[in-house]
Amino acid sequence: MSFDLVLADLRIDGVAQDIGITQGRIACLAPPGTLTAAVVEPCGGLLALPGLVDGHIHLDKTFLGLPWIPHRPDDSIAGRIAAERAQRRAIAEPMALRARRLVEYIAQRGTTAIRTHVDIDADVGLAGLEALLKMRGEVAHLLDMQIVAFPQSGVVILSGGAALLEDAVRAGADVVGGLDPACIDEDVEGQLGIIFGIAERHGVPIDIHLHDPGELGAWELRRIAGRSKAAGMQGRVAVSHAYALGEVPEATLARTAAALAEGGVAIMTNGPGTAAMPPVQRLVAEGVTVFCGSDNIRDAWSPYGDGDMLRRAGVVGYRAGLVTDAELRLALDLVTLAPARVLGLPTQGLVEGAPADLVLVAAEGVAEAVATAPARALVVKAGRIIARGSVLA
Amino acid sequence: MSFDLVLADLRIDGVAQDIGITQGRIACLAPPGTLTAAVVEPCGGLLALPGLVDGHIHLDKTFLGLPWIPHRPDDSIAGRIAAERAQRRAIAEPMALRARRLVEYIAQRGTTAIRTHVDIDADVGLAGLEALLKMRGEVAHLLDMQIVAFPQSGVVILSGGAALLEDAVRAGADVVGGLDPACIDEDVEGQLGIIFGIAERHGVPIDIHLHDPGELGAWELRRIAGRSKAAGMQGRVAVSHAYALGEVPEATLARTAAALAEGGVAIMTNGPGTAAMPPVQRLVAEGVTVFCGSDNIRDAWSPYGDGDMLRRAGVVGYRAGLVTDAELRLALDLVTLAPARVLGLPTQGLVEGAPADLVLVAAEGVAEAVATAPARALVVKAGRIIARGSVLA
Repeated sequence: MSFDLVLADLRIDGVAQDIGITQGRIACLAPPGTLTAAVVEPCGGLLALPGLVDGHIHLDKTFLGLPWIPHRPDDSIAGRIAAERAQRRAIAEPMALRARRLVEYIAQRGTTAIRTHVDIDADVGLAGLEALLKMRGEVAHLLDMQIVAFPQSGVVILSGGAALLEDAVRAGADVVGGLDPACIDEDVEGQLGIIFGIAERHGVPIDIHLHDPGELGAWELRRIAGRSKAAGMQGRVAVSHAYALGEVPEATLARTAAALAEGGVAIMTNGPGTAAMPPVQRLVAEGVTVFCGSDNIRDAWSPYGDGDMLRRAGVVGYRAGLVTDAELRLALDLVTLAPARVLGLPTQGLVEGAPADLVLVAAEGVAEAVATAPARALVVKAGRIIARGSVLA
Repeated sequence: MSFDLVLADLRIDGVAQDIGITQGRIACLAPPGTLTAAVVEPCGGLLALPGLVDGHIHLDKTFLGLPWIPHRPDDSIAGRIAAERAQRRAIAEPMALRARRLVEYIAQRGTTAIRTHVDIDADVGLAGLEALLKMRGEVAHLLDMQIVAFPQSGVVILSGGAALLEDAVRAGADVVGGLDPACIDEDVEGQLGIIFGIAERHGVPIDIHLHDPGELGAWELRRIAGRSKAAGMQGRVAVSHAYALGEVPEATLARTAAALAEGGVAIMTNGPGTAAMPPVQRLVAEGVTVFCGSDNIRDAWSPYGDGDMLRRAGVVGYRAGLVTDAELRLALDLVTLAPARVLGLPTQGLVEGAPADLVLVAAEGVAEAVATAPARALVVKAGRIIARGSVLA
């Protein structure tokens, strides 16, 4: 059998392998030197990791590539949202250029699939969404892109907000988003009713930003889990951030984790710096899918963030206390297999039949790769080499 | 006037400058193109930062450069200390080689001065200290090194511990260390009495590891501050970690911060992942010197850590919520001027008369440099170029 491409002499879990790729998929794993192809890429014993999946990014928000824009602090969330809209208006460069630059930047670092949120509000309407939909085709060779219609300025409190959100889904958004039903909309059942209604009418998944604190946030998580179960949407609902899970007492955590598992609600964390950290291992042990994303990458919300999902696995592992080799492997799952499941991507991982999305690094094993985030030597997307040494091929 | 070396066309705080260096010091700052020297290094408009200072490192503990050693978890501190001693005995390579490798690694990344702790216990006795004292001379061209005699296995509970610690200071340790007077020694006044006694008899500063939690830890901080004031040691006592400051209620924090300021006790944080984060801005506002260090760099205590102090400034800034340009500048101070003061180094910073210790990066300004930790283009130690592109010159 001959292949389109053979990646020769790499390592998977300590075992030297060749990978034979055909039609964008991993067709065969075999001992080194046994596969032939028109194109053979010698991999020099580098460690292969599955393509990195960024489960939560905001392509439309980044300032990356612009002259430095100082962070403007604001004590209230509403104030920060307003400040961001003002900053956005002041940037001359079209959003699509910044977003495209960020896509190339993260693709070079091994990200082969993303779930990006895009602001849907009275200011931008569907313009951001439309720009990303257009750009998605142009970068399809670099990464898979799922787009969430994100009501950054609220749903219920925004006049026409519900209709705008549904228009976004009609216009092509893959996922319907939400935001702090209690503390932004001050109407939990109102916002959830709208979001689940759109999801059910259009058959799209849900991903809700939830920063609401403590017992309030945990209660909202249980309400979301209850609605997910009632709607038969298990596995298609995610909540991003959910700091509350790191804040509540044990009894509340246990009850909420059980509800999330039963409702099939996944939790996204980026390993926050100052906010409470959801207890990753505990949630996973309770049967909850946990996955990771970059969230902010040098934008109005944070000057930090680099879009490097292997480094993000390290940030989350550092914050969650993942230190043994098994725990560091879990951290890798949080940026590969887990978000791939949430995004509904085909079977992922370095197995025959999976899409040939992978990244090569100089590390002895997965634990070292997560703890040290070495440079990406080679990135392969759908069987094509798209970057070498963190530079697009 | 002619100089030994001119660094031509770099930027300091947004202003284009040349730096004229004579006898290892910054002799002159002047507009670009105005200084002459036998050796002129064109700097292409790169941003100059002061040499990075690692205020808390454990050169003797690192596994860096060895084959990957999986982390061995242990619920008790005593268990982890014992496990580390066992791991250390199992490593064939002499500690001095690992320590030397780490020194070169961090020097390439712009660290020009360190305070390293070295284990002093019944197992190793003074051997680790003696090895570092010998190595210090060999790497003096790369960085300044201050050595803390660190009683990793306790002081009071260790038979002969007090005498061993004093022997370490007699043998050349620059600073006397301590460790969790309550939870390791279970004798707060006993341990503090020994440490302050050694410090007063030998005229050395103090640096105490303190992981003891909550009100207990805060009370110990006040006891240390009280002893510092009574001994007239203000400015010569530091406490490393002090997680308690991130755990206690406001009233306790206020009282403890005031005591630390009055006692001249500095606080070292590495921006811990799972432990509570001391409130950096609050402490600084109360007049407490806060400084940073790497702490563990791939060792028995943590698989994380890379010794990169610019990245560490970002970790601490991320954990402490330092986001405005002024706050990001504070984060830089935590890895430059603040630890330089604690180490008692000569006037630091990019000013005439200061040692010519500096690092050049591609960044628009300090805020961007801290938030993104760009590669180190050039490192200068005592007026000599010691690394280019993170490779020793």
